[in-house]
Amino acid sequence: MKQRVVIALGGNALQQNGEVSAEAQKEVAERIGRDIAKLANKYEPIITHGNGPQVGNILLHEESAASEGAPAMPLDTAVAMSQGQIGYWLAQAISNAFRREKRQRQVATIVTQVVVDRKDQAFRRPTKPIGQFYTSREAIKLTKTKGWEMAEDSGRGYRRVVASPAPVDIVESREIVTLVESGAIVIAVGGGGIPVVRTKVLKTLKGVDAVVDKDFAAEKLAELVKADILVSVTAVSNAFLNFGKPDQLALGMINVTEAERYIDSVQFGTGSMLPKMEAITKFAKKGKIGIVTDPQNLELALKRKAGTIIQE
Amino acid sequence: MKQRVVIALGGNALQQNGEVSAEAQKEVAERIGRDIAKLANKYEPIITHGNGPQVGNILLHEESAASEGAPAMPLDTAVAMSQGQIGYWLAQAISNAFRREKRQRQVATIVTQVVVDRKDQAFRRPTKPIGQFYTSREAIKLTKTKGWEMAEDSGRGYRRVVASPAPVDIVESREIVTLVESGAIVIAVGGGGIPVVRTKVLKTLKGVDAVVDKDFAAEKLAELVKADILVSVTAVSNAFLNFGKPDQLALGMINVTEAERYIDSVQFGTGSMLPKMEAITKFAKKGKIGIVTDPQNLELALKRKAGTIIQE
Repeated sequence: MKQRVVIALGGNALQQNGEVSAEAQKEVAERIGRDIAKLANKYEPIITHGNGPQVGNILLHEESAASEGAPAMPLDTAVAMSQGQIGYWLAQAISNAFRREKRQRQVATIVTQVVVDRKDQAFRRPTKPIGQFYTSREAIKLTKTKGWEMAEDSGRGYRRVVASPAPVDIVESREIVTLVESGAIVIAVGGGGIPVVRTKVLKTLKGVDAVVDKDFAAEKLAELVKADILVSVTAVSNAFLNFGKPDQLALGMINVTEAERYIDSVQFGTGSMLPKMEAITKFAKKGKIGIVTDPQNLELALKRKAGTIIQE
Repeated sequence: MKQRVVIALGGNALQQNGEVSAEAQKEVAERIGRDIAKLANKYEPIITHGNGPQVGNILLHEESAASEGAPAMPLDTAVAMSQGQIGYWLAQAISNAFRREKRQRQVATIVTQVVVDRKDQAFRRPTKPIGQFYTSREAIKLTKTKGWEMAEDSGRGYRRVVASPAPVDIVESREIVTLVESGAIVIAVGGGGIPVVRTKVLKTLKGVDAVVDKDFAAEKLAELVKADILVSVTAVSNAFLNFGKPDQLALGMINVTEAERYIDSVQFGTGSMLPKMEAITKFAKKGKIGIVTDPQNLELALKRKAGTIIQE
């Protein structure tokens, strides 16, 4: 029996050396594709990915070139667009990696909606900055005309802020499992998923302006597809204690209690290592394995020979 | 046994009364969702759709707001983005239609690549206009800098023209069948599919600047998923002889020989009814049923009580 592994690629994973053209990102995807193809003999990989820089550019283009005849797409739709974009690049790259080795493996991307709770506290104080920078005058106007919440961002101007609610359910999880069990490598829940809420009575779905954290969405995915391992792939080989200081220490195999203690003692950066550690710790608490590592160490980490590995 | 039906929605199907906002298009999608949910007791629907106006606006935004830090996405990637966008709207709308009737049915969108032949004659003389209008000076510059082929379009300026090659294969057809057989309603091959070519030796895939005709791609899909019926849904109830003239005549049930005679006698408009009639006639020649009709008559047409129906 192959182990089922959810691999969560960082939002910046496709953008290296600051190159953001489609061509450059496709090239990086080809490398990631080879890393994933290598795993497919021993594991059942399910791929999810961030979309920060990509959806940022989509929103920038949509908003700065909007007109009456071609209005800007809202955030939920922009996330859907980024899923098509990145999903296409990754699916093509992964299947190409198999073709280069004269192996055959089906790969498919599913456009994925993630249900959030409209009563989630996150909606009360939006904190996640998205899209382009505006002047204070523009910011005031956008609040008036579009109802956007705006916040000053690191002295560089104003940006829209939206809620980052917790993922409650994944609408297409059954289809993801069906395809994985048919032998396909599936790419899903891109960018944390398209955020939707359920209406009260009929439970119909409706898109909302929010961003679901990619690592928490990956954890929900791993749970729903009954994965054995959740790997958060990022730019560093390990999570570190005292990161960036002279006495920094790479974490190897640790248990859930240790992981929670480090999380509580504010060892990990908000918006970077913290959500990854929280997500994989949450998954490890269910008797599973959670890993943080970089692409170079992915294969070794799955063999427990590299990376930060959390187990109960 | 339910009959398997590929339903090809026109590119303008989601844009009514000239309303192009995401909100307006989602509203139209909800209506289409109800039409499709109605069919699901007796048929296995597989949905495909055009993307002309949507990918047009994506390209417009991408190109007119491009910068070094946020370069414009190329055509293949823009098609992938439109698949995410429209696929999300349709999937949500169709599943909402079931929820409103307290029925449960899974719906999923698959990002789909369509293989074309790089030796297709269409690449020798690109004819399909895409994206925004440019002045003659801009057109000359774009030919020099990007290698784009430009053509004058109806006195309104210059537009880029790309090839419209025939679909040869659908990369994700196996996943589409797997999901349909699991009971899901699948949305796939949006906008004619993301156009890709196979490299010579290793058969790896690579995106190309082209647009596959949505009706021909739908026909290829219907063939590969072994559909019984292919319906091209458009703005008119039937195909007509002498369309728009005093003696215009709606076509009802006709055979393949008749259909081919009308096609040869130039009865149908290039770029509108002609590709639809060609696609459904091609499908009917395989011993299947091909239909052209509008959303209002979809259910009746499947019962052979409305629309233009072609059978061998």
